[in-house]
Amino acid sequence: MADGFDPALERELRAAVGDRHVLVEAADVAPYAVDWTGRFRGRTPAVVRPGSTAEVAAVIEVCARAGRPIVAQGGNTGLVGGSVPLHGEVVVSLRRLDRCGDVDRRRGQLTAGAGVTIGHVQRTARAAGWDYGVDLGARDSATVGGTIATNAGGVHVLRHGATRHQLLGVEAVLADGSVISRLDGLEKDNTGYDLTGLLCGSEGTLAIVTAARLRLVPHLPNRVVALLAFDELDAALDAIGELRRDLDALEALELFFQDGLDLVCEQFGLAEPFADRHHAFVLVECASRIDPTDALARGVAMCAGVADAAVASDPARVRALWRYREDHPEAINRLGPPHKIDVTLPPDGVGAFVARVRVSIATLEPAARVFLFGHAGDGNVHVNVVGVAPDDDRVTDVVLRLVAELGGSISAEHGIGTAKRRWLHLTRSAAELAAYRAIKEALDPRGVLNPHVLLGP
Amino acid sequence: MADGFDPALERELRAAVGDRHVLVEAADVAPYAVDWTGRFRGRTPAVVRPGSTAEVAAVIEVCARAGRPIVAQGGNTGLVGGSVPLHGEVVVSLRRLDRCGDVDRRRGQLTAGAGVTIGHVQRTARAAGWDYGVDLGARDSATVGGTIATNAGGVHVLRHGATRHQLLGVEAVLADGSVISRLDGLEKDNTGYDLTGLLCGSEGTLAIVTAARLRLVPHLPNRVVALLAFDELDAALDAIGELRRDLDALEALELFFQDGLDLVCEQFGLAEPFADRHHAFVLVECASRIDPTDALARGVAMCAGVADAAVASDPARVRALWRYREDHPEAINRLGPPHKIDVTLPPDGVGAFVARVRVSIATLEPAARVFLFGHAGDGNVHVNVVGVAPDDDRVTDVVLRLVAELGGSISAEHGIGTAKRRWLHLTRSAAELAAYRAIKEALDPRGVLNPHVLLGP
Repeated sequence: MADGFDPALERELRAAVGDRHVLVEAADVAPYAVDWTGRFRGRTPAVVRPGSTAEVAAVIEVCARAGRPIVAQGGNTGLVGGSVPLHGEVVVSLRRLDRCGDVDRRRGQLTAGAGVTIGHVQRTARAAGWDYGVDLGARDSATVGGTIATNAGGVHVLRHGATRHQLLGVEAVLADGSVISRLDGLEKDNTGYDLTGLLCGSEGTLAIVTAARLRLVPHLPNRVVALLAFDELDAALDAIGELRRDLDALEALELFFQDGLDLVCEQFGLAEPFADRHHAFVLVECASRIDPTDALARGVAMCAGVADAAVASDPARVRALWRYREDHPEAINRLGPPHKIDVTLPPDGVGAFVARVRVSIATLEPAARVFLFGHAGDGNVHVNVVGVAPDDDRVTDVVLRLVAELGGSISAEHGIGTAKRRWLHLTRSAAELAAYRAIKEALDPRGVLNPHVLLGP
Repeated sequence: MADGFDPALERELRAAVGDRHVLVEAADVAPYAVDWTGRFRGRTPAVVRPGSTAEVAAVIEVCARAGRPIVAQGGNTGLVGGSVPLHGEVVVSLRRLDRCGDVDRRRGQLTAGAGVTIGHVQRTARAAGWDYGVDLGARDSATVGGTIATNAGGVHVLRHGATRHQLLGVEAVLADGSVISRLDGLEKDNTGYDLTGLLCGSEGTLAIVTAARLRLVPHLPNRVVALLAFDELDAALDAIGELRRDLDALEALELFFQDGLDLVCEQFGLAEPFADRHHAFVLVECASRIDPTDALARGVAMCAGVADAAVASDPARVRALWRYREDHPEAINRLGPPHKIDVTLPPDGVGAFVARVRVSIATLEPAARVFLFGHAGDGNVHVNVVGVAPDDDRVTDVVLRLVAELGGSISAEHGIGTAKRRWLHLTRSAAELAAYRAIKEALDPRGVLNPHVLLGP
C-alpha cells in the first residue's frame, strides 16, 4: 500500500478482480506509471488488472464511489501522456482483455478485447483471408482499446480511414459502472446517438472500452512499393496529390527527408537507396488482388519532378524499402529522447510548415536537430526534435502555433492527452470547448475517468 | 398568424431572416407540415427559411428564448416523421442553404450547404472527376442536411460507408445559438470529441447542421450490373456473402423478390428480365477504372445456385436493370399508401425474417400484401405493406419485435423519428438510453431542438 491508499478501497478492488490482479508494491506498479518514451512519469497507488467487462465495471463502480480517479491503460504507446497516472490515479490495465474472436467470414468482422494488440488482430484476420484496415509501427504493443481511445490512424488511413471507420460497435463501461454493449456487427443501424464513434477518440474520458466489433477489409496479397526521390518538396507534394487521385490500389503515401534517411542508414547500417542525394522522399504502397506493379509504374511515370525511383514487389525488398521510413522513430531515439509532436497540415500548408518549423526551432535552440516524416497522403507530419528536452513546452508552443496559423490540426492521431491540453484552444472554438465540457459532464459528472486528460479539471 | 403564435416572436423571426422568409399563412405553411408519404401530418404556426448559418443561429436563439421548439427540415424525404412539426413546432427549412462549393481537386473534397441535394453534390463532384459516396433513390430531393441528420445509407454503403463516413466536418448551430464550424477538411484531426460524428444521425435533436465538408471518392467510369435469379433465398444469401468477399469493385448488392418484380413490370410496362419465374433476385453492381465486366462475370460464375443471370455494361441497359429494383417504391405507392418499415437483419437472420414476417402480418390482416426489397449487402431490408394503414402500429409492432428477436436493427437508415420511438427499447439497453438522454440534456437542456423525436419529451 502506498500514497495514502485507503485500505477499504484496496480490499474492494481485490474483491472485484482477485488478489493477484491488484498491484500495490512500488516495484510492481512502476512500469505502469511511465510511458514508453520516458517523458511522462507519474505515480499510482494501485494497478488493477480486470479480466472481464464485468470486472472493469466493478472496478469503476468502486473507484467512483470512493472518488478515486482512474486512468485506463493499454499498450501505453501514446505520445501525449494520455494513459499515464500523472496525478496519482488508479491505473486500470486492460491487457488481460486479450481474447480475439474468430473471423465472421460472411461479413468480414471480428470481436476483439481491448487488450488485444493490433498485430494479433491482423494475424487473425489474415489467416481467414481478411485484413485489418489499421496498421502502425507499434502494431505489436498498441492495443485495440488504446487505438480506439485515440482514434489511431497509421499508414493506411488514406485507403481505409482511421480507427473510427473500422468500428462497428464497442462494449464499454460508463462512469457509473453501467455497461453498454454493441457487438452485433450490424452494418446499418441508425438507432440513437453514435456512442461508438463518440467514445472513439475520447481518450478514456467518457467510458472505458472493453471490446470492439471490428470491420475487416479484404486481404490483398499483391503489395508493391515505390520509393520516389525529389529535389523539390513542391514536386513531391504535387506527386502526392496526383497519385492519390489516380491510383485505385493506393494504401500508403509516406514522406521523409534526406537527413532522416541518412540517420536511418547510419544507425542501422543500411545502404542509401539512391546513388545521388535528394531533398524529399515519397514512399508509395499499392495493394490489390491483381498485381498492381504496372498501375503503380504508370502512375509514377505520370508524376513530374521525380528525380529517381526504386520499385519493389518481392516481399523482402518491399520490407527493405519500408525500413527507410519505419525505422525513423527508432533511429531518432538512438540520438537521445526526442521531443515528438504529431500534427496535420492542409496540403497547401505542408511546404510552409517544413520551411518555417526548422527556423522557428533553431531560434529557440540552435543545436537542435529536427526530423520530419509522416503520412503525407493525409497531411500528417511527425515532428521529432533532438537536442531539447522531450517536454520542452517552448518547442511545443512554436510548433503548435505554426500549425494553427497554417490551418492544421495540433493532434493528428495521438490525441490531446495532458501534453497538448494548454493548446487545445488554438484550433477549437469556445463553442466547441463548451460542447466538449457539456458532454464530459453529462457522461462523467464526478470526473472519475482520466480527468486530467483533454479538457482537464 | 395562427395557433396562438406570439406576435413578438413573429416580429423577431422576421427581423432575423427577412419578412419574405417567415411563412405564417395556412396555405403557405401547409406543404411543410406533412411528409411526402402523407403519413405524418402536423401543424405549425410558422415556417422560417434562413439564408445563412448566422440566420439559423438567430432563429434558434429567438425560439429558445421564447421556449418554442423547432423542427429542422430539408428535403422531407424521411420515413419516420423526423422532419414534420407533429406538435406545433416552428419549422426551420434549410433549403435556402443551397450553395455547393467547388471541388478541392487535390484532396477530393467539397463544402455543401445543408439545403444542397445529393444529386447536386453528385453532379458537382463528377464534373471534376470525383463522385459522392452516397447515392439513393431520392437523390434529387434529399438534402445534405437531412442525410446527415439521419446518417443516410443508400445503395453504396457496402463500398463507401454511410453518410457519417463521408463527413470530414460540419458547421452547425447548437441549441443555445452558438455556432461550431469544422469545414477545414483535415483528414486526421484528433483534437477533442467527434462532434461531427455525434451530430450525424442525431435527427436534428442536438444541433442544426448548416453545412458540411464532404469526402469525395474517385469517379469510376466503368459500371457493370448483373441481375441474378435464384430459386432459393438461401442460395441468394450465400451468393451475396461470396460476392462481397471476392469482388474488389463491388458497389451495390440489392435484393428483391418475384412478387415485387411482377409489380414493377406491371406498373411500368416493363418486360420481365427472365423467361422463367424465380424466387429471389440479386442485383450486383461493380464499378472501377478498368472495365470490371470480366471480374464480375468470373465472380458470378463462382456462385452456386444462380438459376439465371443478365449482365449489362452499356449505360442504357445498366439503367434498365436498375429499374427493376429502384422502381419498387413508386410501383408500390401506386397500390395505395404503403406502411413502410426500414430494418436491418444480420446475415443469419434474413432468411427467417423473410419467411416469418409475411406470416406475422397475415395474421393481423389477411388481405395485406407484403413487399420486401433492400440493400442485401448490409442486411438492410425495406418492408412495404399495402392494405393496412401506413401508421398501423400493430404492423410496426410485429415487424420490429421480429427484427429484435433475430438480432437486427429497428432502423437501418431512416432513424427513429417519432414513428419508432415506442420501440427504441427493443434494441437499446437502459444504459444506452440513459447515455442518450444525458447527451441530449447536455446539449439541449431546454428541449428546443426536435424534442418529440428519438427520445421524446
